[in-house]
Amino acid sequence: MTTTQARTEPEHAQEADPQAGPAAAEGHHGGHGPHGYSAQKDAHLKRLRRIEGQIRGLQRMVDEDVYCIDVLTQVSASTKALQSFALSLLEEHLRHCVAAAAEEGGTELDAKVAEATAAISRLLRS
Amino acid sequence: MTTTQARTEPEHAQEADPQAGPAAAEGHHGGHGPHGYSAQKDAHLKRLRRIEGQIRGLQRMVDEDVYCIDVLTQVSASTKALQSFALSLLEEHLRHCVAAAAEEGGTELDAKVAEATAAISRLLRS
Amino acid sequence: MTTTQARTEPEHAQEADPQAGPAAAEGHHGGHGPHGYSAQKDAHLKRLRRIEGQIRGLQRMVDEDVYCIDVLTQVSASTKALQSFALSLLEEHLRHCVAAAAEEGGTELDAKVAEATAAISRLLRS
Amino acid sequence: MTTTQARTEPEHAQEADPQAGPAAAEGHHGGHGPHGYSAQKDAHLKRLRRIEGQIRGLQRMVDEDVYCIDVLTQVSASTKALQSFALSLLEEHLRHCVAAAAEEGGTELDAKVAEATAAISRLLRS
Repeated sequence: MTTTQARTEPEHAQEADPQAGPAAAEGHHGGHGPHGYSAQKDAHLKRLRRIEGQIRGLQRMVDEDVYCIDVLTQVSASTKALQSFALSLLEEHLRHCVAAAAEEGGTELDAKVAEATAAISRLLRS
Repeated sequence: MTTTQARTEPEHAQEADPQAGPAAAEGHHGGHGPHGYSAQKDAHLKRLRRIEGQIRGLQRMVDEDVYCIDVLTQVSASTKALQSFALSLLEEHLRHCVAAAAEEGGTELDAKVAEATAAISRLLRS
Repeated sequence: MTTTQARTEPEHAQEADPQAGPAAAEGHHGGHGPHGYSAQKDAHLKRLRRIEGQIRGLQRMVDEDVYCIDVLTQVSASTKALQSFALSLLEEHLRHCVAAAAEEGGTELDAKVAEATAAISRLLRS
Repeated sequence: MTTTQARTEPEHAQEADPQAGPAAAEGHHGGHGPHGYSAQKDAHLKRLRRIEGQIRGLQRMVDEDVYCIDVLTQVSASTKALQSFALSLLEEHLRHCVAAAAEEGGTELDAKVAEATAAISRLLRS
């Protein structure tokens, strides 16, 4: 790990915490109390900071002329980590937003399902 | 773009340049002069810094409670960018390492081709 | 198109039709009338028969020593067609099964969402 | 496995064999004797017939109203099988065509590598 990373990572940690309090919980996930939600948000941010670290690791690998195949292995790991993050977001979205639309029923549900399917399609094509 | 990014990005740019000189060119891409090689290396690092910026953008989106679907769209864009980077690395690898092995022939070529295929398989599964 | 295909395709067509009537509509998509449902089922079967034709096309290509890259292009088209089919199934599943679970609420919804997410994860990894 | 499959699969097996003889071996893989080549060709055709069987299996599942998630699992298996087939074709292509171009050198190699990379890109996006 470089000094750059050591310097930036704590900043991000500080950035994330103050806003992940009760205020943040008033997002679009109504009905799910502040604690559950901010815990999930912290988990998302933690995953993303880890991915950011992987991308910086890739820069070091390229910079130090690491063998291409080893760089590609690390790219695969980062892509997998991004897709895991996407899946956890998607699961949350289905559980909250799509379910809420289902309770309302009608057009709203159709719109939400079409929107989620389009997002899954973009993930599959990427 | 946050101030964090503004602060770190120039550092990375400085980091990359001094090492991309003639010394770096003595890597495994023998026979390809320093300039061609360091240009490619700079292009790789530039791509990766852009991806790092996208990952930081994702952190801000999560932090600001941006709508899940919009976060997922940005995840797809980052995954696509990582795969483009992987493809450019792979192309370079086939052009240099696999081609060099082909000139030697025999077992070396088989080993390099099997190794490249395994790397492509990992990219497809991620 | 080979004679084999000419012989097998009508069989499949006959197979599909008689069962796609009102009886089939009493599946797990309760509350969605026979016609809407059998129309969707026919659309699914039509897509799958087209994909089957693509796979047979691939066999002919290999058999006739078509250039590898052209075979790979056709493989990509077939994979894309399979993923489109998967997305249309998934959309239907979210609209009917997940929505039904949301109306019941509680554990049933969580289980259905976890199950759908796992299926999406398998599609992403394949 | 249904009787339909039992009836069609042997036909395919008969179809493939007579043409996979020495004549077929005079394809674009010059320098690789008839036996090695026709063995590989038979392996490719065998894989594709198995995938064709999976696609027919999917038709039966849809026809019999099998639960969506189980159909999706089978779609993932078929996609994975298609990608394995693509990887084995690609490996062969790199070993023969790209290697042959490397021996010639120059523009031919660049063209072949660019073409292979484009094919890999299509596989990644599908």
